[in-house]
Amino acid sequence: MSAPDYGCAFSLWRDQTPAWRAYTHHPFVEGLRTGSLPRANFLHYLRQDYIFLIHFARAWALAAAKGETLAEIQAASATVQALAHVEMPLHVQICAREGIDAAALEATEEAPANVAYTRYVLESGYSGGFLDLMAALAPCVLGYGEIGLRLKGSGGPYADWINTYAGHDYQGLCRDVGTLIDGALLHRLGPDWASLPRAGHLSQRFATATRLEVGFWQMGLDLR
Amino acid sequence: MSAPDYGCAFSLWRDQTPAWRAYTHHPFVEGLRTGSLPRANFLHYLRQDYIFLIHFARAWALAAAKGETLAEIQAASATVQALAHVEMPLHVQICAREGIDAAALEATEEAPANVAYTRYVLESGYSGGFLDLMAALAPCVLGYGEIGLRLKGSGGPYADWINTYAGHDYQGLCRDVGTLIDGALLHRLGPDWASLPRAGHLSQRFATATRLEVGFWQMGLDLR
Amino acid sequence: MSAPDYGCAFSLWRDQTPAWRAYTHHPFVEGLRTGSLPRANFLHYLRQDYIFLIHFARAWALAAAKGETLAEIQAASATVQALAHVEMPLHVQICAREGIDAAALEATEEAPANVAYTRYVLESGYSGGFLDLMAALAPCVLGYGEIGLRLKGSGGPYADWINTYAGHDYQGLCRDVGTLIDGALLHRLGPDWASLPRAGHLSQRFATATRLEVGFWQMGLDLR
Amino acid sequence: MSAPDYGCAFSLWRDQTPAWRAYTHHPFVEGLRTGSLPRANFLHYLRQDYIFLIHFARAWALAAAKGETLAEIQAASATVQALAHVEMPLHVQICAREGIDAAALEATEEAPANVAYTRYVLESGYSGGFLDLMAALAPCVLGYGEIGLRLKGSGGPYADWINTYAGHDYQGLCRDVGTLIDGALLHRLGPDWASLPRAGHLSQRFATATRLEVGFWQMGLDLR
Repeated sequence: MSAPDYGCAFSLWRDQTPAWRAYTHHPFVEGLRTGSLPRANFLHYLRQDYIFLIHFARAWALAAAKGETLAEIQAASATVQALAHVEMPLHVQICAREGIDAAALEATEEAPANVAYTRYVLESGYSGGFLDLMAALAPCVLGYGEIGLRLKGSGGPYADWINTYAGHDYQGLCRDVGTLIDGALLHRLGPDWASLPRAGHLSQRFATATRLEVGFWQMGLDLR
Repeated sequence: MSAPDYGCAFSLWRDQTPAWRAYTHHPFVEGLRTGSLPRANFLHYLRQDYIFLIHFARAWALAAAKGETLAEIQAASATVQALAHVEMPLHVQICAREGIDAAALEATEEAPANVAYTRYVLESGYSGGFLDLMAALAPCVLGYGEIGLRLKGSGGPYADWINTYAGHDYQGLCRDVGTLIDGALLHRLGPDWASLPRAGHLSQRFATATRLEVGFWQMGLDLR
Repeated sequence: MSAPDYGCAFSLWRDQTPAWRAYTHHPFVEGLRTGSLPRANFLHYLRQDYIFLIHFARAWALAAAKGETLAEIQAASATVQALAHVEMPLHVQICAREGIDAAALEATEEAPANVAYTRYVLESGYSGGFLDLMAALAPCVLGYGEIGLRLKGSGGPYADWINTYAGHDYQGLCRDVGTLIDGALLHRLGPDWASLPRAGHLSQRFATATRLEVGFWQMGLDLR
Repeated sequence: MSAPDYGCAFSLWRDQTPAWRAYTHHPFVEGLRTGSLPRANFLHYLRQDYIFLIHFARAWALAAAKGETLAEIQAASATVQALAHVEMPLHVQICAREGIDAAALEATEEAPANVAYTRYVLESGYSGGFLDLMAALAPCVLGYGEIGLRLKGSGGPYADWINTYAGHDYQGLCRDVGTLIDGALLHRLGPDWASLPRAGHLSQRFATATRLEVGFWQMGLDLR
């Protein structure tokens, strides 16, 4: 499958990332597609994903703090707002429907694979700057978009999950984030950014984050 | 004037801050109250305030990044959102009405007093934690609320400005921020937080930030 | 084995950490003690440890940046200096003796378990403050001290490694770090800090970091 | 006077900074040169400089935390170490000789101009990355070097101060820092970095920091 059109940087970074296919075609993802993923694994994933979302919202807030233009601050702020006031309450509802109440969610012990990815993202942002944060966030935001598109129409027990990421709203978000990233690169590094050493460092961040996403799916499969 | 009811921490910190009166009764403020403040000074203040608001939004975004509970993240996120998507566009409009267009705003050179306060706030947040950030932000958020209340009904050329901060929405925000701060202290330091060394450090942050706010008004008066 | 005397906070946090024994008695550690650890596993560990040391030095540098007293800044600075100018060149030498040259070291791909622990430490420091950083660093610094003491005199192929951590210098460092932590707690939270909610959060950090250290040994064992 | 040879970036940034002459030829500096600066102003400066040095050491520690190569971490670490273990104790001694004891130093209230510069530097580092930090630190480190060279041999009551910055050691440090900056730019942005938008942002940081240095001298003159 060719890359969805989420901008130039995504297209480049994706091509330079050996683990991209292992991430987007992980057995966990295939289990979502075919419906063969056991419920227990999905619920384990959902609980970890709640913790993930908290740190993900924090990472987007850090992006707003590190934005260098009003447009960057506004875009990042809108994402935090959507995560904290829409996605997370929705996630709590979905979990409740599956029999995981708020107290159980809060009591979830964070899995090492979850720590690895979320703290890598946050630390990229704290130690580096806005671009480092974007490169570390991109595999998650845009990878889920690509997975959603590929799994679209699969039906089965995980159709709701698939439709969320295949849907119009999420795909629009992916295109917006792609635009934000390309604009941020242009603003800082100019039109020939891909030829600079910095481009290699950012691609590395994207690749490392992708490897950690593979670990996140694997955690779901291993129930650890 | 007694402290408005913006919570326990505000009340305590305010009482321990020698410069509080110099800040809230600064000649610039008195000029807003009586209407004697020259227009040029107000416009200079407005231009600097635009830059201030950018860094202020960034500081609240940092607070969201450093929040330890979903409620803290949500509260900080809502403030960033209001600043970036409501306050700042409104500020741009007000400036336009006064003949300062967007290009002029963007071209404003940041005054040293502006740098001093905004970077003190941000650095408090980066080097310390959520509480340090709150203590450094509080003189601005809550001080403007107190000034608004005191100047309420003054009329004159600055009535719009006064009514913004005296108004129902802003006073509600002040009470919410007061509640956020008291809750954050309780969550981290327990009910007897005021007796801990940390309380003295936070009060110091509030006092230093207040001194820098005095400098911000003075900048408006000196047109530098 | 009772806790070595590395101060009050260590003693408390250690007792509250279920994974402490799994960390300090991990099969990798037992393999070092009995000499049964295959060389390949040790070399894998050494290569990852080089990357670890870089981030560890960065974490101590962050501690210096976040120190609130001259003594804290000096203590953290001396540790960075020792890591960057003594430990790391020494590590490069040891690796060279084992046939891993500098280029091979630099080319090592960071293992997920390495990312998890190092980024957790750094992010604790960036998002929290000095105390959070100390709580996240402590399992490594002081745990290696405890392991060194327990393995002291074991002999065998890993005697050099054991003697480094059992030795006078490293044990002195552990006591100094314990004193630094206890002093930092007293300076911020007063003598009854253990009764505050913050104490629970810090103990949690120590416990999470310990779980990630278990993962680090396991990485050495699994050669992944 | 032409720029001393502290590397390419310094030479470029210096040329693009209108306030450079106002900084390096400030009346305070001229008072040091001719000996006409009143003692009280020098002592006021010395007391503020003590607080400055603490934050300066913290900023270099942050640079070590943000270094991307072992060489960057080592260079920054050596600077922190020199500041915390040599410069600061020396500064305390000098102050003591002038009748300002350690307690008086600690009790000094930080002047707003001091807050402005130090927090600008630290926040540049936290919000941006290593390069932003270097651009904000450079006017201080390298400007003092240039001033020292220009004032060399002036004699008078401030000869000790002048000789410190004109001396072999400090001039060597300036060349090393210049090399560190040029290397960091090359490592991240490649040989044509000066043509990138990022170059403009960094030059802006250098210029803003220079304006804040002017304010620091002015504080010494105004005794505020």
